[in-house]
Amino acid sequence: MPAPPEGRSELALTHRSGLRRLKERGTHDRTIVDTILDEGLICHVGVEDGGTIVTPMAYARVGDRLYLHGAPANRTLRLVAGGAPACITVTLLDGLVLARSAFHHSMNYRCAILFGTGSTVEDLDEKRLASAALLDHMAPGRSADARPPTPAELRSTLIVRFPIEEGSAKVRGGGPVDDAEDLSSPIWAGQIPLELMARPCVAEEDLPEGTALPSYAQSYPSRRSQP
Amino acid sequence: MPAPPEGRSELALTHRSGLRRLKERGTHDRTIVDTILDEGLICHVGVEDGGTIVTPMAYARVGDRLYLHGAPANRTLRLVAGGAPACITVTLLDGLVLARSAFHHSMNYRCAILFGTGSTVEDLDEKRLASAALLDHMAPGRSADARPPTPAELRSTLIVRFPIEEGSAKVRGGGPVDDAEDLSSPIWAGQIPLELMARPCVAEEDLPEGTALPSYAQSYPSRRSQP
Repeated sequence: MPAPPEGRSELALTHRSGLRRLKERGTHDRTIVDTILDEGLICHVGVEDGGTIVTPMAYARVGDRLYLHGAPANRTLRLVAGGAPACITVTLLDGLVLARSAFHHSMNYRCAILFGTGSTVEDLDEKRLASAALLDHMAPGRSADARPPTPAELRSTLIVRFPIEEGSAKVRGGGPVDDAEDLSSPIWAGQIPLELMARPCVAEEDLPEGTALPSYAQSYPSRRSQP
Repeated sequence: MPAPPEGRSELALTHRSGLRRLKERGTHDRTIVDTILDEGLICHVGVEDGGTIVTPMAYARVGDRLYLHGAPANRTLRLVAGGAPACITVTLLDGLVLARSAFHHSMNYRCAILFGTGSTVEDLDEKRLASAALLDHMAPGRSADARPPTPAELRSTLIVRFPIEEGSAKVRGGGPVDDAEDLSSPIWAGQIPLELMARPCVAEEDLPEGTALPSYAQSYPSRRSQP
């Protein structure tokens, strides 16, 4: 499959990325996919290793690529770096949906599911860019504050690029959808919205006196966009 | 592999569940695995479908089993129900770890990774039990309040059992581990703890007057166990 032009607005529709059911919840819209990728903090990487293995990893998006990183001994990452077909899923859990009937209970979520093959980043400049993106994805601005990676550190980090090219997003929002005959039952029904929130930061005890507390640590933003 | 006795305290150590690196963070202890499974709300199910696919799903643990459920048209679930080798991962993101050096940034997390083959639950009594467990995993006590599933609803739900038998847990906690020569730098370092929190519940607008607000909706507990 040819690489998509930068800024392509839809993910490729293929057999495996085709939305098979609940079509009203599925989309190939890149804006929605990117919003989910940018709001999430971890992805789940699936790859074949004599059987499927699903591993949580940090990541960052830069344009039409995801970057993953880890130690060169990380087996899942090595497989993805080596071009094994992989699936990368980012899921944001937005809430619990309590219906009158057990049957119609659900969850509100947004997920992006990407398919593709990764490749190893060898160039030190691209590794620097990916390293900065990974830090800034965790905490915007952090890469300007942290001590930058040395060439030796960059060489001892495995960084993998993965194309945002084939896949889909699925979104469920709103309240429960109960059967008409249940609506008069005196059973509470509604949503319990969930949000990944930061608690007060915990500074290392041995920071030199006068070390400034950066704003992203002082008041870390909720990852959940306001509905 | 023979089924483990109920209450077995360690997961089976096999080639694929063997902890290959960061051993200090890995364990086969069932208590830790169960705590992660009970605290999580969604799992990521990986299975081969002409390529790996990783799908988020709701689940519940009952003893040595996980139950998954969904519509019979759900392709991933059908594959797992049919005995395709699967990997089920539950990840709790506990915090961001900001080191002085870019290289040592990390995340605090707990994850359970299970390997195995699922099977379809056909018996209506076990389906009822699984349905109640799935509701009570979302909100403890909910199954006693909701309108129970009818036999027709149970028949139109695909429920899959998956053994908690082979796999491992990985846990990272605490602050950053910086190199000695970075410790005197005036760069802030520490943890930003993260927690999945509930916001105020949103009741359906058409509830009959006098419908009681259950305690689990009024003050939904944080899923994060207190450290």
